[in-house]
Amino acid sequence: MRPVFYVSDGTGITTETIGHTVLAQFEGIEYHAKRFPFVDTPEKAARTAALIDNAQKQAGKKAVVFTSLVDPEADTVIRDTGALVLDVLKPFTRPLESELGAQRSLTIGKAHALVDYKAYEERINATNFALTHDDGMNYNYGNADLILVGVSRSGKTPTCLYMALHYGVKAANYPLTDEDLEGEGLPKRLQPFRQKLFGLTIDPIRLQQIRQERKPNSRYATLEQCRKEVSRAEAMFQSIRLPHLSTTNTSIEEISSKIISQLDISTHHY
Amino acid sequence: MRPVFYVSDGTGITTETIGHTVLAQFEGIEYHAKRFPFVDTPEKAARTAALIDNAQKQAGKKAVVFTSLVDPEADTVIRDTGALVLDVLKPFTRPLESELGAQRSLTIGKAHALVDYKAYEERINATNFALTHDDGMNYNYGNADLILVGVSRSGKTPTCLYMALHYGVKAANYPLTDEDLEGEGLPKRLQPFRQKLFGLTIDPIRLQQIRQERKPNSRYATLEQCRKEVSRAEAMFQSIRLPHLSTTNTSIEEISSKIISQLDISTHHY
Repeated sequence: MRPVFYVSDGTGITTETIGHTVLAQFEGIEYHAKRFPFVDTPEKAARTAALIDNAQKQAGKKAVVFTSLVDPEADTVIRDTGALVLDVLKPFTRPLESELGAQRSLTIGKAHALVDYKAYEERINATNFALTHDDGMNYNYGNADLILVGVSRSGKTPTCLYMALHYGVKAANYPLTDEDLEGEGLPKRLQPFRQKLFGLTIDPIRLQQIRQERKPNSRYATLEQCRKEVSRAEAMFQSIRLPHLSTTNTSIEEISSKIISQLDISTHHY
Repeated sequence: MRPVFYVSDGTGITTETIGHTVLAQFEGIEYHAKRFPFVDTPEKAARTAALIDNAQKQAGKKAVVFTSLVDPEADTVIRDTGALVLDVLKPFTRPLESELGAQRSLTIGKAHALVDYKAYEERINATNFALTHDDGMNYNYGNADLILVGVSRSGKTPTCLYMALHYGVKAANYPLTDEDLEGEGLPKRLQPFRQKLFGLTIDPIRLQQIRQERKPNSRYATLEQCRKEVSRAEAMFQSIRLPHLSTTNTSIEEISSKIISQLDISTHHY
């Protein structure tokens, strides 16, 4: 088991994201990773270095340490462990400095520090919007940036919340009821908002598992019911040419990103 | 205005995160950035390259392009634009290959592709937990990993949702009522869960702004009321030595990361 450390003077989230992505390229490598955020003094670096030392002795091999420490003294303390230390920002700094004709400024914990209230408020307001427009609670869709449509438990709620928290997108969701699925075309309530709609679907077997966990042995959780709802929902999406995606093998991040690029919603990822 | 592109064969989220963090180190540089996800064929790369070309002509300077394209042909198409192309993963691949004694495998769109149902379910279940244990809706805290405590609009809900979606942490939240704030010590309902509690506080002036937007000109939104609630909440946190943080100048990411490291909740950041 290879010991892996993410060491940062901020939250360490960016450092972990990069490290995790880099390591995901190496199949079959077993590793145990831990994140050390807010390592912003040489003293804290020394404590982290002691843990790295220890992990290396126990594993009998070098640790892999992803860092983004701005303080050179703290950085040296970590490097003195003899671990493979990879600074996640430095490789890009030099070429950018020469292209931009500017020096990077060394400020600690920058990536996820709160910069402006406006962006923050956008995310919070979008999250409140998602919460108050979840699951057909509120059909006042005039302010929505988009409306996710799908059967119960197809993944609408977490997708809406993710898009709100990360993109500041006001995402509502509408659960397709039996009545909707027996009717023709788009439910009436959604008709004025055709351009904002996006369909979610899911494999009926997977849906059955999810519903079974939620309401064991209900009619709602039978495979027959799941099959019927999914096939009708998909037929509706196709008949009105609604863009749609299956959540079965797709992460929340991927779904959100695809929806935003398909509907061409202009936004920034926080 | 410097044109910046994030070009990826996956969601591009990791690429954007790295690029954004790297650029944040350069103060005073004005840039306009756009993310191009799912560029997974040379044809799509050619379309993106045309946009890069165009942006360079309009701006009269080189674009900065952060990429993570696995396909070498697509990568070449992008590099042929003459932009400053920075591959966000490559700098770490070579040293890791030699330390791990393994070659990286070239799979497209790996970072945020859904890998295992178990981790996915953990996030979804935690999100459902946060939704059903929001704002004192449900006091069944036995299964909670943590309970955030604070006055109304101090940032509890978005923090809980973020922790659920990103760490799979089951986070409940408890709003401090007038009654709680007039009493002594911890509200009764929270007493059995002392080890799981974390306090959130906020600057009263900021709180007043947030409440004013939500319920304009209510007693709830007066500065006097906000001051009183916050000072009592902070006094309570101090009297029982509850770890707590102010959300005033702190991003959701930072708050979540600090809470998790202070309560020593073992988790992984998705």
